[in-house]
Amino acid sequence: MPSSRELAADLRVSRTTTLLALEQLVAEGYLAARAGSGTFVAHELPDDLPRSSRALPSKATRHPPLSKRGKALAAGRPPSERLAGPPRPFRIGVPAVDLFPVRTWSQLVARRLRSASPQQLDYGETAGALELRRAIAAHVRAARGTECDPEQVLVVSGARRAIDLLCQLLLDPGDGAWMEEPGYPGARNALVAAGARIHPVGVDDEGLDVAAGASVAPRARLVYVTPSHQFPLGVPMSLPRRLALLQWASRAGAWVIEDDYDAEFRHGARPVPCLHGLDGDGRVLYVGSFSKTLFPALRLGFVIAPRDLRDALVAVRRASELHPPRLDQAVLADFIHEGHYERHLRRMRRVYRERLEALQQAARRHCAGALKLRPALTGLHAVADLEEADARQVFAAAARHGVEVMPLAAYGFGHARVPHALVLGFGAVRADAMDAGMERLAAAIDDARRPGPRRRNRASVGV
Amino acid sequence: MPSSRELAADLRVSRTTTLLALEQLVAEGYLAARAGSGTFVAHELPDDLPRSSRALPSKATRHPPLSKRGKALAAGRPPSERLAGPPRPFRIGVPAVDLFPVRTWSQLVARRLRSASPQQLDYGETAGALELRRAIAAHVRAARGTECDPEQVLVVSGARRAIDLLCQLLLDPGDGAWMEEPGYPGARNALVAAGARIHPVGVDDEGLDVAAGASVAPRARLVYVTPSHQFPLGVPMSLPRRLALLQWASRAGAWVIEDDYDAEFRHGARPVPCLHGLDGDGRVLYVGSFSKTLFPALRLGFVIAPRDLRDALVAVRRASELHPPRLDQAVLADFIHEGHYERHLRRMRRVYRERLEALQQAARRHCAGALKLRPALTGLHAVADLEEADARQVFAAAARHGVEVMPLAAYGFGHARVPHALVLGFGAVRADAMDAGMERLAAAIDDARRPGPRRRNRASVGV
Repeated sequence: MPSSRELAADLRVSRTTTLLALEQLVAEGYLAARAGSGTFVAHELPDDLPRSSRALPSKATRHPPLSKRGKALAAGRPPSERLAGPPRPFRIGVPAVDLFPVRTWSQLVARRLRSASPQQLDYGETAGALELRRAIAAHVRAARGTECDPEQVLVVSGARRAIDLLCQLLLDPGDGAWMEEPGYPGARNALVAAGARIHPVGVDDEGLDVAAGASVAPRARLVYVTPSHQFPLGVPMSLPRRLALLQWASRAGAWVIEDDYDAEFRHGARPVPCLHGLDGDGRVLYVGSFSKTLFPALRLGFVIAPRDLRDALVAVRRASELHPPRLDQAVLADFIHEGHYERHLRRMRRVYRERLEALQQAARRHCAGALKLRPALTGLHAVADLEEADARQVFAAAARHGVEVMPLAAYGFGHARVPHALVLGFGAVRADAMDAGMERLAAAIDDARRPGPRRRNRASVGV
Repeated sequence: MPSSRELAADLRVSRTTTLLALEQLVAEGYLAARAGSGTFVAHELPDDLPRSSRALPSKATRHPPLSKRGKALAAGRPPSERLAGPPRPFRIGVPAVDLFPVRTWSQLVARRLRSASPQQLDYGETAGALELRRAIAAHVRAARGTECDPEQVLVVSGARRAIDLLCQLLLDPGDGAWMEEPGYPGARNALVAAGARIHPVGVDDEGLDVAAGASVAPRARLVYVTPSHQFPLGVPMSLPRRLALLQWASRAGAWVIEDDYDAEFRHGARPVPCLHGLDGDGRVLYVGSFSKTLFPALRLGFVIAPRDLRDALVAVRRASELHPPRLDQAVLADFIHEGHYERHLRRMRRVYRERLEALQQAARRHCAGALKLRPALTGLHAVADLEEADARQVFAAAARHGVEVMPLAAYGFGHARVPHALVLGFGAVRADAMDAGMERLAAAIDDARRPGPRRRNRASVGV
């Protein structure tokens, strides 16, 4: 090719234009530049190269297989579908989103945005914003009676992210881990992703059965446990059981992930000290979430880790993400510092107690003899034993009647026998909507007990 | 113990109070309830149990060791410290946060918050909000000339999270992976976390050296590559090289992660088609980020995956998190749909071209003979070769002079010989601040070339 100078003169365009055109042709493979000797037409033109089809076939892809963990996770039970639309009786896992002070939150957001400096649009601290870590540490010290400082706090996008990061930090593929059965599917998936061997351990009326775990998997390296409010059974772990767990973990050299979810919502009884507060070894990793105390769409939670794990935990996080959005962190820090968080929690405790009582009354009124509610001491859902019906059939019938219930068995891992029971959420259901919901549920239980023609037909169609 | 009814009568309190008191004592381990036979004083009182100390010693923790991957990540090179304060010359990886339209963004946030329904405070779609996935798919189709639909998009909290999720989905421990050297430390860490064997592959003026990779690691299962703007060298990958990479991957049965970062900012030349658009096998996973096109504090990015991987990718995500905050997703969807995103990109292209030219002029003016800028065709930083000085010494001297530079060697993995060069960011530096910054850098280079008494003293103190 002529030089860029000659070309520019020939074509009466600027030399910059010529240089850019040549560069583009080199980048696309039509020209080849050889240092010191000039620019030449490429030997092999890109148009001659076998070009793969641009339209990606929608089914016939020819890519490699997934990783083993990818396959294991993809093969897992998909999460239960919710019915469409706003929370309805008795959706679980959702707080009273109808009562969240959106206006206060919006004012804090607007204030932060008005005062945002360019610097605040830049990357922030990997562990999370210091002001939020301070607010969280102060709250946890006051509410859960344990020692921690802002340096021990890692702000994450919810409890799942916390559990996943901890599993990556603490578990190698093949390591054993105890997990409550029935238990939290989110934690189970994080353990699968980390390649752990999962040992399901039963739950009795004092919480996780430590003796059973110690006999089934004495060498487990980690215990995942929900002591404030066992998920999904709702039992709080008794103090002796907590001490027994820590003693076992100390002897066995195991880590403990304390998912302290729903600790904020106790209906009556005084809270038992958290495992983190009883731990003298630095083996308890405390996980908290704002999904139930504020609102799920926010995606904020936290880990409290021993001081000497902080750098490693931050390094593990840095390999997979940086930090949650800075604006959300700043607004939450304000919300806590200015007392809105405590005020909201106090109000919600009252609301949830009312909603629970309304649920209990409605169950007695409409489902006596069919459904027996277990006592609910904490949290936003209750477990109800079905007297005669099959839980999965009730689940299906309830969906047809427009109510959401979860069979307790949905949280089993196939090891323990799970009784026919339902998990009924009351957090997102207004007290005055309980009766209507329970009427529908009664009708669904009725349907499930008396095999109707429609269902029989459906079953006989088969595939 | 007497029954709750008797106790209530004796103590003249309500039965509820009595029941709560008994429950609390059971929970704390002072009483034991035996079904059918009543409540008894516990055999072993919690106060007698050996209680671990509550105060966590700050150093002497007695917990188990970390996982291998945890140790490997913790032992990795920590990220370079930034100088305190707002972005200064020549911080890399930061866009023009001084020019982001915060006011427009705030208005969109306020509008979304005003109209927020309780349902929008609930959990959202695990793949990300449909309206944002639509906006992203439309943008990528138009800007990068590749086919994709909203079903293929996964919204994530930045490119690191994307790469990490993909490594989890695609790689088993021990699988080989190519990685450009010098290259992006974030991707390297994600590969370490997934347990991959990393094969560093060199980069020449056409991008990743496919022939070298094929000879060093012919059986690698994955290639991580930055074709639009190789990080950190800045070269775009030529079209023949792109085709060669896809052909090799097709023969070898390897996945390709295309980190298309900085594709939006080309200074002149027309963009080369992305690998995703050339892929006929569904083996290219496209990663995009809004950290540079909007602002880093937002933490939003995305993956475009083949349709048949969608469910597995969502399952892997669900094991570690749910979705980015819904408000941010909604606001970004509005920002794109209403044309603000395109407008901002157009403006920024002009701004970055101006900033780049100012950098080049300032370098000629103040550092001629000491520093030679390589051509920068894309992106927000330039590579500058040091004519005589040692890059690490210049790095240290620059910090003393209040300028931030990165030695190119900071992005090497110790395999290839990395020349003495600096990476200079110009994205966050106003054009009129380049001269002052370059003057300071010239002084720093001067310091580094002429061993001053202070540095010699320091070196001789040693430890």
